[in-house]
Amino acid sequence: MTDLIQTVKNPLGALGSIYTDQYELTMAQGYFKSGKYEQQACFDYFFRKVPCDGGYVVFSGLDTLLEVLSDLCFDDEAIAYLAEQGFANDFLEHLRAFRFEAEVLAPREGELVFPFEPVVRVRGGLLEAQIVESALLNVLNFESLIATKASRLREAAGPDKKVIDFGLRRAQGFAGMQLSRAAVVGGCDSTSNVFAGYRDGIPITGTQAHSWIQSFDTELEAFRTYADAFPEKCILLVDTYDTLESGVPNAITVGKEMEERGERLDGIRLDSGDLAWLAKRARKMLDDAGLDYVKIAASNQLDEHVIKSLLDQDAPIDAFGVGTRLVTSYDCPALDGVYKLSQVDDKPRLKLSESRVKVNFPGHKQVLRLIDEQGMFYGDCVVVDGQTEPDHMHHPFDDDKHVAIEGFDNETLLRPVMNDGEVLVDRPSAHDAAAYAQERLDRLPGEHKRFQNPHVYKVGLSEQMRDLRDRTLQTARKTHLNEDR
Amino acid sequence: MTDLIQTVKNPLGALGSIYTDQYELTMAQGYFKSGKYEQQACFDYFFRKVPCDGGYVVFSGLDTLLEVLSDLCFDDEAIAYLAEQGFANDFLEHLRAFRFEAEVLAPREGELVFPFEPVVRVRGGLLEAQIVESALLNVLNFESLIATKASRLREAAGPDKKVIDFGLRRAQGFAGMQLSRAAVVGGCDSTSNVFAGYRDGIPITGTQAHSWIQSFDTELEAFRTYADAFPEKCILLVDTYDTLESGVPNAITVGKEMEERGERLDGIRLDSGDLAWLAKRARKMLDDAGLDYVKIAASNQLDEHVIKSLLDQDAPIDAFGVGTRLVTSYDCPALDGVYKLSQVDDKPRLKLSESRVKVNFPGHKQVLRLIDEQGMFYGDCVVVDGQTEPDHMHHPFDDDKHVAIEGFDNETLLRPVMNDGEVLVDRPSAHDAAAYAQERLDRLPGEHKRFQNPHVYKVGLSEQMRDLRDRTLQTARKTHLNEDR
Repeated sequence: MTDLIQTVKNPLGALGSIYTDQYELTMAQGYFKSGKYEQQACFDYFFRKVPCDGGYVVFSGLDTLLEVLSDLCFDDEAIAYLAEQGFANDFLEHLRAFRFEAEVLAPREGELVFPFEPVVRVRGGLLEAQIVESALLNVLNFESLIATKASRLREAAGPDKKVIDFGLRRAQGFAGMQLSRAAVVGGCDSTSNVFAGYRDGIPITGTQAHSWIQSFDTELEAFRTYADAFPEKCILLVDTYDTLESGVPNAITVGKEMEERGERLDGIRLDSGDLAWLAKRARKMLDDAGLDYVKIAASNQLDEHVIKSLLDQDAPIDAFGVGTRLVTSYDCPALDGVYKLSQVDDKPRLKLSESRVKVNFPGHKQVLRLIDEQGMFYGDCVVVDGQTEPDHMHHPFDDDKHVAIEGFDNETLLRPVMNDGEVLVDRPSAHDAAAYAQERLDRLPGEHKRFQNPHVYKVGLSEQMRDLRDRTLQTARKTHLNEDR
Repeated sequence: MTDLIQTVKNPLGALGSIYTDQYELTMAQGYFKSGKYEQQACFDYFFRKVPCDGGYVVFSGLDTLLEVLSDLCFDDEAIAYLAEQGFANDFLEHLRAFRFEAEVLAPREGELVFPFEPVVRVRGGLLEAQIVESALLNVLNFESLIATKASRLREAAGPDKKVIDFGLRRAQGFAGMQLSRAAVVGGCDSTSNVFAGYRDGIPITGTQAHSWIQSFDTELEAFRTYADAFPEKCILLVDTYDTLESGVPNAITVGKEMEERGERLDGIRLDSGDLAWLAKRARKMLDDAGLDYVKIAASNQLDEHVIKSLLDQDAPIDAFGVGTRLVTSYDCPALDGVYKLSQVDDKPRLKLSESRVKVNFPGHKQVLRLIDEQGMFYGDCVVVDGQTEPDHMHHPFDDDKHVAIEGFDNETLLRPVMNDGEVLVDRPSAHDAAAYAQERLDRLPGEHKRFQNPHVYKVGLSEQMRDLRDRTLQTARKTHLNEDR
């Protein structure tokens, strides 16, 4: 089935090249016409704010992105459409021969990344590096957002509870194709979404809806029929009529009948009402009936805060089915990642702004992760490419703040993942990426992981990097604002 | 290009059948095994809450849904995958022959729809009507959400300003394939998204990014080169270095040079800072230079509230580029649409709940839209299928409230759109659906359209419908709770 799985990885196929904002192509034509298109450009993907006021982002989406970039071409249909839109013939002939051959650097999927540091770096011809902007942002912003949200759910649920993606029905449309993998990368155990299971080889799960129960004359008949059909993994939805008056007693009846046949009822699911209160009552009823092995699953508008609250109340819930609030990242439905030009040929570039945090860092950069003696992450230092042992790290926006970082071990975060059209790294399974994310989270101090006012993880600039930024800034001000500072 | 456009309309293709929650297939196997699968079932799609605390929802997504339902089949790959997941062979053989042949009723795309009324009705075999649930919800919830958000932007901008979807980069992943059409249905003029232009035949638009400007040594050179390449539709982004010190003066220089060549600068775009203040200053600078025909476009975290505020301040902005907050419906990123079983064979069905608003309306239903003497919408009456002239309408949850509705004209909202696997209606273009939505909005009284505390549009039940609901409720309580009320 491998071939087809490769195909469903990139549902855009050859049309990925027009999964883009028109201005990318307009600029590309401008670069082509003005002869600038082969100038060597470097772009950085980064973000300025962590979603949900959290302390970290789980990097995800690289797998999908590599698929899209590998398939990138302008086929006859795309060329014909662009011709109708008024693009020039010579430019379109150039696109017909186009392949994406730029160098791409990125962390491993599941890596923890932080505001302002370069997360993905693309270096190649100005035209080719420019036109991938929209698709790159679309994929990385979304999958990293969902992986981050899932990670928060896992953080709330702890290592021993199940957390399951139930959200396809409320997902933002075709985002449903790709989100479940990101959810697993971030910490979910499985998904209800069959397509995602097929696409990404992740575990799928599911039992019955209210409609199953309603389609029978009685709840008991509905439960019995389900237990007959699925004796191996029978989870009964107990809230269709009344959870404690009808659902749980009927589930107990069926559970005891299963026991007599040498089977075991797997669980019950609560989907409405006060979940903490109901779970405690249901647990007691099940235990009193000798069904202490029957698990309790809960769903209904869950998020990390509700899960934390339920567990703080000692609600005996074994599995959480999370829908809308995971799959849309409901309280923060976008990651604000941007893709900024940082160098053209040998000239570092930046955009000026009244707001200092909106000035990007110019030049070719790398990120060194600083590791303390306990193996925990201390901070990330953005350095000029090639620099290995900075001794100081400067706050990016506050000139008064700097720290000595001699003696820390460090790791290089960005590694080449694609060049000359070839993917250079093994493509991790969702499971492998998830294991990596968890391993990294274990090394991130707890104060960066809490939900309320997490401590800001240090991201700074090496002296060389800071000097490059300041020089480029001065030059830009002189050039563009006739200032002489 | 028509064939290919049909293909990109449904990127799921034959795998649409597994774009579903596993429990749909688990239940389907249960229905199959227990012999219930051919019972005639009726499901209703409806929602309980309008997104963004608004007063109406613009129905969208039918076009995509009809495509997905028409293509629905279980191909060899899907069957093989489901076999690996443990589904039974006889059931999978049944799926191999499966085609979706149920009857689907729906309003026209662009129709205004309201909480609690059936929006889409699916009637057919229990198995076939069940397994389309996840895909139907996924598509309709999302596209209606975006159309509704776009409609609010249009409401804020008024009829004469341009509103453009700029959001692909922050869209929730592959949702970017389908969202722009919904945005146009709701009231956007065009999109930056080339794929969407291709897929849905909607206008695309775009100029240049900061990276274009940065790739040149000076802003003036960047503007000149762009004007040379695109003299017909040249819009210059003026905030890369300093909007009023650098961007606008350089744009004026280029605009005057274009005038000398007999060309016209189309516009400038503001993308940061205080847009009202900058637009006024820029307008004056342009006017003073004799460039009063040059338009001003604005972007940067716009939504309906910011647009309204800008226009309330008389900001001279001609076009709004809206990104993140449109494409994710940022302040309310999900429509809570559900799909509930309302009848099996001749038995009306409902789910009980402690919360009265969560009890669904049973039976086969239709919606009559009541029209007053001025042709304005007065309210919607949910009736038992076939009922045409109800004389009273009852509040669905408050027994004390009812109104006489004799003498109102009415329209039937739900019409057959698919049956026996055939699509029965003309598929509207985005433009046609948008025109229909606008025509309907013009007939919705203003109090339902305001952003703050909109007046709740009346949705009620005919006496016959109310009686059916109450009888079914009593029966359900008797059957499932041993109550005798």
